[in-house]
Amino acid sequence: MSNVAIEPVVAFLKTLQDDICQALEAADGRAKFVEDNWQREEGGGGRTRVLTDGAVIEQGGVNFSLVSGNKLPPSATAHRPELAGRTWRACGVSLVIHPKNPFIPTSHANVRFFVAEKEGEAPVWWFGGGFDLTPFYPFDEDIKHWHQTAHGLCAPFGNDIYPAHKKWCDEYFFLKHRNETRGVGGLFFDDLNQWDFDTCFEYIKAVGRGYIDAYVPIMEKRKDTPFGEKERQFQLYRRGRYVEFNLVFDRGTLFGLQSGGRTESILMSMPPLARWEYNFQPDKDTAEGKLTNYLKPRDWLS
Amino acid sequence: MSNVAIEPVVAFLKTLQDDICQALEAADGRAKFVEDNWQREEGGGGRTRVLTDGAVIEQGGVNFSLVSGNKLPPSATAHRPELAGRTWRACGVSLVIHPKNPFIPTSHANVRFFVAEKEGEAPVWWFGGGFDLTPFYPFDEDIKHWHQTAHGLCAPFGNDIYPAHKKWCDEYFFLKHRNETRGVGGLFFDDLNQWDFDTCFEYIKAVGRGYIDAYVPIMEKRKDTPFGEKERQFQLYRRGRYVEFNLVFDRGTLFGLQSGGRTESILMSMPPLARWEYNFQPDKDTAEGKLTNYLKPRDWLS
Repeated sequence: MSNVAIEPVVAFLKTLQDDICQALEAADGRAKFVEDNWQREEGGGGRTRVLTDGAVIEQGGVNFSLVSGNKLPPSATAHRPELAGRTWRACGVSLVIHPKNPFIPTSHANVRFFVAEKEGEAPVWWFGGGFDLTPFYPFDEDIKHWHQTAHGLCAPFGNDIYPAHKKWCDEYFFLKHRNETRGVGGLFFDDLNQWDFDTCFEYIKAVGRGYIDAYVPIMEKRKDTPFGEKERQFQLYRRGRYVEFNLVFDRGTLFGLQSGGRTESILMSMPPLARWEYNFQPDKDTAEGKLTNYLKPRDWLS
Repeated sequence: MSNVAIEPVVAFLKTLQDDICQALEAADGRAKFVEDNWQREEGGGGRTRVLTDGAVIEQGGVNFSLVSGNKLPPSATAHRPELAGRTWRACGVSLVIHPKNPFIPTSHANVRFFVAEKEGEAPVWWFGGGFDLTPFYPFDEDIKHWHQTAHGLCAPFGNDIYPAHKKWCDEYFFLKHRNETRGVGGLFFDDLNQWDFDTCFEYIKAVGRGYIDAYVPIMEKRKDTPFGEKERQFQLYRRGRYVEFNLVFDRGTLFGLQSGGRTESILMSMPPLARWEYNFQPDKDTAEGKLTNYLKPRDWLS
């Protein structure tokens, strides 16, 4: 079995954050990410990078964090009592991009690593992550590109990986009270330690880098599509659903807020502007009404 | 002991909904509430009333509902196993008003009644409710008026009621991850059955009617205060905190969404427009910075 070590993961994640920010800045063409370094009292810290008011990106955040603790809290170990009392470290890159143009989807990506240690015993570790796309005005070719990129990066790890992590994504990003998915999915996985450490790490690298390949071409392709007030208002309305998912369902957000995480970095995922309207139901035949057809799981490869 | 009956409570709540809508329409001077009647498959239904794009009220909803079930779900009876399997009915009026002018606070009020019955046994029942105020640019005289109205309506029920329900309100409407209250409080109570049914019912009536006396004068007083883009943007930013509270902490919202309640009526509380900005921290000496001083419990009567 390969050596479990957090240092190479941390190094990769920092480089990934750099690469993603650089690719997004290049695609935006105007605004730059501003970095905010922060420390956490209980151990660790992070570097939060935020881009606002770009030519293409209305608001976006790409966050790196490395946090640690001397003792896992009971809430984190309820289902794994063998972890109680272990020291732990967790690191990850998490990002959400809210573009200005409603024809560019919102995107989210995350890769993370967790390890709990105890002297004289083998470390307990796992990876998690994925990326998912939330269009307002979906283009089939964009969604196919997104899923083909996901499928391609999964392929070296086995034919069962894309279908499994695609399904997990559809199930995870689901708004029960709206009976709809958050968007058109992608990849999602947690507790990944089914291969040896090196192979799991390779997969995480592929997912992190794959996000750039999956998203930037869509930004480029749609950034000059003309839009008006109707499209803008629909985008703001749909961003409300994004807020609902993140605050009601997203485990990372809720665990972060409840466990005393850094609120500003966690809620970096919130949209710059969102709206709610009572009982808004666009006609089925309109461009807005057609989005509904995309908010249920679909095979995007055939 | 007085007779426990839901019918007079339902009748009162419908009249209260009418009275509140009428008072708010009069204060708005332009827009009218639009009613939406709905049925619930499992039993009961409601009438949701929404006012949008008024002269004073940007968006507001006043909802009446009466719902019932044949069997209380385990989640509702975890702490009261004696209720398991009982038939139940619940009714209430719930409202949130989001004014356009940032100098008028957002307001919320709710009164509700719950009864669980079983043949041959005494019904188990309680009332709940309250009202609370969320200013953006607080005026001490408005907040004093709000709390004096609350204090005045509580007085006939004992000198301990206002302090107890004021404290409960401060504790309930608290955003742990922001370390601030949602606003400047008011009244909040649950599981109220400490008096006989008639007295509890009288208290609920006083709270429901008291909301109009507490809020409408503030609307009237501030509705013509000039404001600009700076105040508007701050209002939208602070509305983000309202969204955070309602989706992360509010038990009524979360229970409603999780238990298959009517989503559109539950999320009627969402603001028409809200925004988020990374790490926004107004200078302490500005009008915006001063709000922070109001977001912790304070005695408003002395």
